[in-house]
Amino acid sequence: MRDALVAAAFRLFLERGYEQTTVDDIVALAGVGRRSFFRYFPSKEDVVFPDHERCLADMTAFLAASDEAHEPVPRVCDAARLVLRMYAENPSFSVQRYRLTKRVPGLRAYELSVVWRYERALAEYLRGRFVGRPDGSLRADVIAAAVVAAHNNALRSWLRSDGKVDASTTVDHALGYVRSAFDDLPAAPAQEHPAHPVALVDPVDPVHAVDPVHPGRSEDPEDVVVVVSRRGAPLWRVVQEIETTLGRD
Amino acid sequence: MRDALVAAAFRLFLERGYEQTTVDDIVALAGVGRRSFFRYFPSKEDVVFPDHERCLADMTAFLAASDEAHEPVPRVCDAARLVLRMYAENPSFSVQRYRLTKRVPGLRAYELSVVWRYERALAEYLRGRFVGRPDGSLRADVIAAAVVAAHNNALRSWLRSDGKVDASTTVDHALGYVRSAFDDLPAAPAQEHPAHPVALVDPVDPVHAVDPVHPGRSEDPEDVVVVVSRRGAPLWRVVQEIETTLGRD
Repeated sequence: MRDALVAAAFRLFLERGYEQTTVDDIVALAGVGRRSFFRYFPSKEDVVFPDHERCLADMTAFLAASDEAHEPVPRVCDAARLVLRMYAENPSFSVQRYRLTKRVPGLRAYELSVVWRYERALAEYLRGRFVGRPDGSLRADVIAAAVVAAHNNALRSWLRSDGKVDASTTVDHALGYVRSAFDDLPAAPAQEHPAHPVALVDPVDPVHAVDPVHPGRSEDPEDVVVVVSRRGAPLWRVVQEIETTLGRD
Repeated sequence: MRDALVAAAFRLFLERGYEQTTVDDIVALAGVGRRSFFRYFPSKEDVVFPDHERCLADMTAFLAASDEAHEPVPRVCDAARLVLRMYAENPSFSVQRYRLTKRVPGLRAYELSVVWRYERALAEYLRGRFVGRPDGSLRADVIAAAVVAAHNNALRSWLRSDGKVDASTTVDHALGYVRSAFDDLPAAPAQEHPAHPVALVDPVDPVHAVDPVHPGRSEDPEDVVVVVSRRGAPLWRVVQEIETTLGRD
């Protein structure tokens, strides 16, 4: 019944246009009553996006099933992949809808509100994970927005290819960019150095070594060390700081 | 006239509620005709956000006035500051509107569409600047979304403080976080290294030095050097690489 309503609606939207199609037209073609339509869909707009509520519920459940062992940024990237998977399950329907949505301002507004709900779901999860960390809510909001933007960039590439390019390769690449920006980035920099955010070094302490992947941990043989130094720092101070840092292993 | 309509509208929205106030009520209180209202505002929603059109035009003009000497990420951060400045020009009005918008779903939807237009303006500018760079449109979309999310996080902090905290310090801090993530970040990483995006070092070449602020340039005495190294790299190789890098000065 639900699928029949979606199929009837899309047939009419494509034949007559979205604005020219009424709920009465849809139920007549599907051979059911108006009440059946509204049992499944609160409005005509909702029949255009029949799977977002399920996908939002899946995403929320996926995030709720996380534990401390899940790194937060990769976890929200995996959550975003659920949305692309929903689109990729039915390429021709997704491409048709993309073309329809581009033409109808009301549908674009609806889509913005759906995107916002996905973004809030990711941000809420990250806020929970970043509790007690400096700038927790800022980091959560920014990373959630970046993940959604990367996902949507990949989704549009895939839709514009008429579903021909590989969806998961495209989204993996886009999310990889976000991860390269945010994986284990330290908290917001001190405001005295807005023009040189990596130069977090106090001028009287010209060299400083940190392990950004596992601060305070050193069990992982794949660990990396990042040394940030002013160019003017004397070499002996750079070497001394590196010796001290590597010596901690 | 325009200001009188806004003042009348807000007095009624706060006294009676937004939904309970009609355009007729607003024009009666302001002592003007309906046509005057619609000359200034396409709809009742628009009177709630009377300055966004001007601010969007200011942002577009500001970005259009950029030249090659402007670094793209700081430039879009400065563009976002225009929005906060508009809110901060009139704190009590902005705080009243914030409380109203939280209660009225239709206004939240309107606000989403405005936020989307700001984000598109930033993304379009960045796309222009990133033409020909790998992943130009991806980077543009992600950075624009991150800037908007950081701005909005700061804006909400300011609004929740009833306009008491310093708006520009708050937004500088939030945008500093975005800049620390994206300033001169290389393009999307190779997909073979998704778990360790900073460890882009070939295993047979355990040490690698780059200057992320001005790759290929060394005139600036404030330059920084970042050395990325596997923890397992022998110390002599780390020192050798640093000597080579600093020797280039």
